[in-house]
Amino acid sequence: MPPTIPDIVISRLPIYLRALTRLAQDGHTVTSSHELGQRLGISSAQIRKDLSHFGGFGKQGTGYQIPYLIDQLKQVLKVNREWEVALVGAGDLGSALAHYRGFVNRGFRIACVFDNSPQKIGNRVGDFVIEPVERLAEVIREHDIKIAMLAVPAEHAQAVAEQLIAAGIHGILNYAPINLNVPDHIRVQYIDPVVQLQRMTYYIP
Amino acid sequence: MPPTIPDIVISRLPIYLRALTRLAQDGHTVTSSHELGQRLGISSAQIRKDLSHFGGFGKQGTGYQIPYLIDQLKQVLKVNREWEVALVGAGDLGSALAHYRGFVNRGFRIACVFDNSPQKIGNRVGDFVIEPVERLAEVIREHDIKIAMLAVPAEHAQAVAEQLIAAGIHGILNYAPINLNVPDHIRVQYIDPVVQLQRMTYYIP
Repeated sequence: MPPTIPDIVISRLPIYLRALTRLAQDGHTVTSSHELGQRLGISSAQIRKDLSHFGGFGKQGTGYQIPYLIDQLKQVLKVNREWEVALVGAGDLGSALAHYRGFVNRGFRIACVFDNSPQKIGNRVGDFVIEPVERLAEVIREHDIKIAMLAVPAEHAQAVAEQLIAAGIHGILNYAPINLNVPDHIRVQYIDPVVQLQRMTYYIP
Repeated sequence: MPPTIPDIVISRLPIYLRALTRLAQDGHTVTSSHELGQRLGISSAQIRKDLSHFGGFGKQGTGYQIPYLIDQLKQVLKVNREWEVALVGAGDLGSALAHYRGFVNRGFRIACVFDNSPQKIGNRVGDFVIEPVERLAEVIREHDIKIAMLAVPAEHAQAVAEQLIAAGIHGILNYAPINLNVPDHIRVQYIDPVVQLQRMTYYIP
């Protein structure tokens, strides 16, 4: 596989995977770049071009076999396995994430939850007992966890991110409304609802 | 202002605004495209080019006046006002959003919360009394609300989106893990943590 696939292509693969999974749940077994494009508001040419980076996965004129394409995309994205995820922050958002059932069958499972509040440590949230942040490095190393979700206040996010990286985390999904400074080999994705909302208001008359 | 500014440029403006607000909170009054770029992992040339779409906002060699640039970006993004937002779905995620304090001073205020569960309707969540989805159109029209956050299960998301649009909503921040089919003039942004996580695992060795 060539190492030079643009990140923008990679960013669309989970969207394709999600739509294909939905089609499969609805009983479909075959689809086309045209049908997929209509569902996603993406041109069929774009979809074919994106998938061509990985060999195409379809035969001209016969469309895509959905189960096969799902398997292949899961393999490309490395979610044909289950990644354990560390969750840091057990406030309102962290609790919602701990209860979120949408990770199942999509490649991820929260394995541990940390907080620094003495009032929270030892309590249960969902299926987890909240552990002190001091145990973070030990637990992450013990479970060989590579991914963390960061749901702490902005003022703590950079320091916690550094602890996570020192413990061996490679990817951080950051819910704190702040940009993290991390080494080049660390992947960070951001979820900030206000950034998404501000991106819409520009267009609203 | 030319109407042809690429969406990718618009998508970066909230990031700049967030970083500038943070710099201001930390007591800075002047910054440069170089400093901003280092904080954000974006090249200074990119930042200057993005801002040049709107006139540049800085003088060669003297950098950017932070309060001025914040004001200008807020004006461009139309968040120099406060938008009322309708929240649909008062489950774990909806509750976390109802309690989220990060909207303050960033242009948004949740104005009403809806759910279809008889067990939830009439209960309080944060500062809100949960109202039945049946009242959605009436409340949205009464308050002239243009933006909604959708935190309902995937199987209800499309139907609720259609109700929202019929009631006058122009922008939807969709937390349900499904693509919405909406008319061209409606803006939708998506927040799906699994999509973000899957985008990272591709890169993790």
